[in-house]
Amino acid sequence: MDLAARAALGSGADFWSTKSVGEVPAITLTDGPHGVRRQRAAADHLGINDAEPATCFPPAVALAQSWDPALVARVAAAIGREAHALDVQVVLGPGINIKRDPRGGRNFEYYSEDPHLSGVLGSAWVRGIQDQGIGASVKHFAVNNQETDRIRISAEVDTRTLREVYLPAFHRVITEARPWTVMTSYNRINGVWAAENSWLLTELLRGEWGYEGVVVSDWGAVDDRVRSVAAGLDLVMPGPDTAGDAQLVTAVGDGALPEAAVRRAAQRIETLGRRAHSLARPELRVDLEAHHELAREAARRSIVLLRNADELLPLAPTDSLAVIGELARSPRYQGGGSSHVTATRVDVPLDEIARRAGGAVRFEVGYRLDTDDDGADAEALRSAAVRAAAAADTAVVFCGLAEELESEGFDRADIDLPATQLELIAAVTEAQPRTAVVLSHGGVVRLATVPAPALLDAALSGQGGGAAIADVLFGTVNPSGKLAETVPLRLQDVPSYLNFPGAAGQVRHGEGLYVGYRWYDALERDVQFPFGHGLSYTEFDYRDLRLTVTDDGITARVTVANIGRRAGREVAQFYVGVPDSAVPRPPRVLAGFAAAELAAGESTELEVRLTRRDLAYWEVRVGDWVLEPGDYRVDVGASSRDLRAGATVTLTGEGAEIPLTLESTLAEVAHNPAALERVLELLAGAAPDWAGGASAGQSNIAAMMGGLPVGRLRAFLGGRLTRAQLQEALDGRLVKPPNPAP
Amino acid sequence: MDLAARAALGSGADFWSTKSVGEVPAITLTDGPHGVRRQRAAADHLGINDAEPATCFPPAVALAQSWDPALVARVAAAIGREAHALDVQVVLGPGINIKRDPRGGRNFEYYSEDPHLSGVLGSAWVRGIQDQGIGASVKHFAVNNQETDRIRISAEVDTRTLREVYLPAFHRVITEARPWTVMTSYNRINGVWAAENSWLLTELLRGEWGYEGVVVSDWGAVDDRVRSVAAGLDLVMPGPDTAGDAQLVTAVGDGALPEAAVRRAAQRIETLGRRAHSLARPELRVDLEAHHELAREAARRSIVLLRNADELLPLAPTDSLAVIGELARSPRYQGGGSSHVTATRVDVPLDEIARRAGGAVRFEVGYRLDTDDDGADAEALRSAAVRAAAAADTAVVFCGLAEELESEGFDRADIDLPATQLELIAAVTEAQPRTAVVLSHGGVVRLATVPAPALLDAALSGQGGGAAIADVLFGTVNPSGKLAETVPLRLQDVPSYLNFPGAAGQVRHGEGLYVGYRWYDALERDVQFPFGHGLSYTEFDYRDLRLTVTDDGITARVTVANIGRRAGREVAQFYVGVPDSAVPRPPRVLAGFAAAELAAGESTELEVRLTRRDLAYWEVRVGDWVLEPGDYRVDVGASSRDLRAGATVTLTGEGAEIPLTLESTLAEVAHNPAALERVLELLAGAAPDWAGGASAGQSNIAAMMGGLPVGRLRAFLGGRLTRAQLQEALDGRLVKPPNPAP
Repeated sequence: MDLAARAALGSGADFWSTKSVGEVPAITLTDGPHGVRRQRAAADHLGINDAEPATCFPPAVALAQSWDPALVARVAAAIGREAHALDVQVVLGPGINIKRDPRGGRNFEYYSEDPHLSGVLGSAWVRGIQDQGIGASVKHFAVNNQETDRIRISAEVDTRTLREVYLPAFHRVITEARPWTVMTSYNRINGVWAAENSWLLTELLRGEWGYEGVVVSDWGAVDDRVRSVAAGLDLVMPGPDTAGDAQLVTAVGDGALPEAAVRRAAQRIETLGRRAHSLARPELRVDLEAHHELAREAARRSIVLLRNADELLPLAPTDSLAVIGELARSPRYQGGGSSHVTATRVDVPLDEIARRAGGAVRFEVGYRLDTDDDGADAEALRSAAVRAAAAADTAVVFCGLAEELESEGFDRADIDLPATQLELIAAVTEAQPRTAVVLSHGGVVRLATVPAPALLDAALSGQGGGAAIADVLFGTVNPSGKLAETVPLRLQDVPSYLNFPGAAGQVRHGEGLYVGYRWYDALERDVQFPFGHGLSYTEFDYRDLRLTVTDDGITARVTVANIGRRAGREVAQFYVGVPDSAVPRPPRVLAGFAAAELAAGESTELEVRLTRRDLAYWEVRVGDWVLEPGDYRVDVGASSRDLRAGATVTLTGEGAEIPLTLESTLAEVAHNPAALERVLELLAGAAPDWAGGASAGQSNIAAMMGGLPVGRLRAFLGGRLTRAQLQEALDGRLVKPPNPAP
Repeated sequence: MDLAARAALGSGADFWSTKSVGEVPAITLTDGPHGVRRQRAAADHLGINDAEPATCFPPAVALAQSWDPALVARVAAAIGREAHALDVQVVLGPGINIKRDPRGGRNFEYYSEDPHLSGVLGSAWVRGIQDQGIGASVKHFAVNNQETDRIRISAEVDTRTLREVYLPAFHRVITEARPWTVMTSYNRINGVWAAENSWLLTELLRGEWGYEGVVVSDWGAVDDRVRSVAAGLDLVMPGPDTAGDAQLVTAVGDGALPEAAVRRAAQRIETLGRRAHSLARPELRVDLEAHHELAREAARRSIVLLRNADELLPLAPTDSLAVIGELARSPRYQGGGSSHVTATRVDVPLDEIARRAGGAVRFEVGYRLDTDDDGADAEALRSAAVRAAAAADTAVVFCGLAEELESEGFDRADIDLPATQLELIAAVTEAQPRTAVVLSHGGVVRLATVPAPALLDAALSGQGGGAAIADVLFGTVNPSGKLAETVPLRLQDVPSYLNFPGAAGQVRHGEGLYVGYRWYDALERDVQFPFGHGLSYTEFDYRDLRLTVTDDGITARVTVANIGRRAGREVAQFYVGVPDSAVPRPPRVLAGFAAAELAAGESTELEVRLTRRDLAYWEVRVGDWVLEPGDYRVDVGASSRDLRAGATVTLTGEGAEIPLTLESTLAEVAHNPAALERVLELLAGAAPDWAGGASAGQSNIAAMMGGLPVGRLRAFLGGRLTRAQLQEALDGRLVKPPNPAP
């Protein structure tokens, strides 16, 4: 291949395919990640139109609520099999961006507000699909947390927050699961487009993380092809980009771009193409019935029982039921935009309930999905629903957001359910105290104004959601889902409330590290439902938490017992805090989780390894992870605010060795008594009268002196000391990082 | 003068004086700003030790609560007269930094969380002192909002926040009052030290604001003399800086520094010296008795009546009183650090109360100021206080913070009153329902746990505070102070709670524009006492708000009536909001205020001009202030949350003309229909099949298309369009700034 051919290989052949150059085979990439979205020839130029039928599994928002990596891997494997059958070699997923704000329009495509959970599930997805010989494309790399102005916006975010919140999930997926491709995001990060960001694509991804696969642009994310390739991008999509191909050749000729950059990119694309085709299984036949059953299984495990006053659920088999709400017969089961799958079939909740019910089932539409006008029509629908609810033993109200309200391409302006639905719920609940509400939505909705005694969160549960919801309502399945996002009391409580979606091309990550539950916990602020929350029809007890320090971190063991009357599954969550940290840290962060499936009365021991990486913080002063010496508090619980047992271990850690410089303060130098003594001797020589002021014994003098950088002493000594003299006194000795707060 | 002499003139002669070079007279600068702190020869090298006696007026924290620029000017004038008598030519004040966080150790030296109030009062102070022929030094320029790591910390703050929150007070003071000197702060701003910041010291201060006076470093704020002078610094203090003087000469010789920079600095210092000496009045004799009376008057006007259930205050003249608290006999009336004044005399609250009381007065110490240990001693003191309170008709408890708890040089870790004091208040209030609490403190304290039915905030009230407190307690003075800072319900509610005081040398201004009440209002979050709050012994009615649009902004008139039974003073506050702004804005900001002194039954019309500058926002995309066209809502009230009347006017405004570029989105181009048509024509020519996808009618397609920058269309057209073609289609036409939110 010559330079021109290599350059051409770096842009796609068309919207969904790479080029076949010489012996290098073309491959097809399609949208994911909750099903294969294979468009045929008539595809539009934005790639939005309808696609071939494929199984629509629960989108990430629901799947994450399973907290079940094995399940996620099985779903991804099924998607991989469908990809083979549809002649697709790479499925564009998983989406693992952090849900920074509940208004984010694409949150339904992402897993969680927590990096650990996002990374573990994303890693499972990649392993699941790649074990089938289909490539993944982990996306959107990186800090793509909103849809508003998504192409121009610059995420202004500090290094530690990048390292501890927005990058760890990518790090885990890339180093653990080795995805064939990584997709850059549209946005800028601190002013530099992700697709032109050589720190991100080369220094970090290739250098630190050792990534060897293909970096592909999000569709249309490349502004300047030469800068992108120079930064480490391999493949620009969609193609072709004839002009860009030529620009690469020119840039190499001009010496503006090393030829090696084009060669490396082409080599990686070639490797990808060869690998994909060596693993192709065009003969593979997909059992769509089995995949539909898997979609149901995934949905069952993803449903979260938020509230269940007086054990209203499960429904009694013989109760007469009023099933209310358009969403019961027109289910919302996925989000809008590029991930939209043409489902092979869809379970309808109303039908599934009718199939299982022993008593009468009466349906009322309750509200319109296409309008929130509260006119005579809305009132009539509400009245009919209230009458039906009052006449039945129990009411089940299906509420949620229409697809028009949330999609890729825009963010929500609020997190409210439509007003007509809220009024309906209030009216029905008043008429029928035995009312359960089932929620369908892609992003978090406010529930402070939903008074129903039972509340089931189905999120977007895919094409099998209808059956899964019915199974949980009737108790044939005991719910075990846990929230992957906090439900706040009000939108105004959200960490990024005033910093979202930014303005004039910039969005400030003002909340820094404190995303999701980290914020509510640090502020000791009440929430509606905490991160990790989810009830069961049985009860679990936690006991005997034991911590063991290992070379790799901490091993935590806890015994979980099912003390209720039904079999059930519990997800035990392990949170770690460092109360005496040298740097500000959230009170606790998720560092591990494990699940137990237990018959009534059964108990088991769960073991989780909390790794050094999950315990460390990013020390900006040395540019590395630091595992501080000191006490680590581990709490295990049924949610981030339902902590059942806690214990503390001391790690010897490693500390960060920060050199003493002229910018070190006297208080910092004091950590090294010998160095302090040398500085004070130097001072005494230069200014014999100086000690007088300092020894006046006023505490505020001590405070002011302690904060003075050593080099700044010169300002008070009229040039009687030089920088060199002072640096010599510091003598290259090292100190541990001091606590920054007084 | 030759270059070396000019360079030498740029550093002081000693700790407090400039050099006399040739015919240029030396001048003396001393700390302020609530009194002259003149140190004699034995001064220590940090300039902290005791000083000559001078009147200690209420520090800025209290003075600001007067909301009375005329009073502030009279206080500054008195300080100016004392400066003459003490042979001081420049007093280092006013401090006008924004109180970003209640923990800020130096907040007592600053006025407010609001830029308008800070600027108006700072301007009055400068005019007051300079009218006496003494120079001011407005400080600390700029964004010096904390003491922790104050010399190294970099305030990371976006441009709009700088322009709308941290710089407006400086702009007002500098352009309205023309201070002789401006003092740089210690900190960095976005990585660049204030004293080396040529954008700040030259481009903005000299260029935009037309400042012609002397820029002086805070004491020890200069790290590199050459870089500082190059950036626009004139005078480095303290002096001498022999090494730095020589470095300037060398740098000029090397061509690293323009000689003009050294010449200009010397020229300004010379002008300052000559002006100061031409206005010297060494013969001036100060009437310290009159100044003490002025200190009392200022304190009376600064006290805020926070709460007064059942009209507990004023005290009945014949009541027997239990006066409780060490602070009643050992008053705290100023803050620690460089502003500390040696008072000429101090009014003691207990003595002043005893002098005015008609009934018995019994004193109990209640707690120790030097310890918060809750042992047997604390319990004994508390019991004695409770007994005294129960036996009296009314209890008055003096509480607050010891000087050791707040000072220049460190920030507070919390905003709590000492636990022993809180327990004392609870116990006394339970024993004696008629309990008033008087608070002395430099920074905001949490009051959610102070149940007393009457609450008087004296802040730090200077040497006349004792008499002033007694006057207000007995009603010979009707309180009229208003809070210049929000009192939150809890520290965790504070906008900068998790971003203060930063770490590793950086402090992120994550709350952006939303400082103080702007935050609580935008979040609709309850507070303990809102910004601007303050009760009176009488009541005021507001009516007939009328708004008139003028060339300079809006003129607002309102009638205020005293509808109670006593004479009183009311500070009417005018807040402006722009509900349909094109950019995120706080719900309302203070844009003007005016006070009325009214006899019982009297009324008057107040008039306030709300200027264009106070109504405009900083448009980062054009780098200028923009007065948007549209509706402006003006609310007038007795506090920021006690709004009594509101009205809306429409301003034609001016808009911001933002050029259409390749980064303009299609939605933005649509504001210019002709340009949009040209772009679409170009598109149709390049990709005839393209319209198909776009006309699919799905709303999410429209949303995604609208967000696409014009130049990025190329990415979907495989190089069939060039940047030049697209830019030509945009044709240099201009658009108004679009609303960034969906």
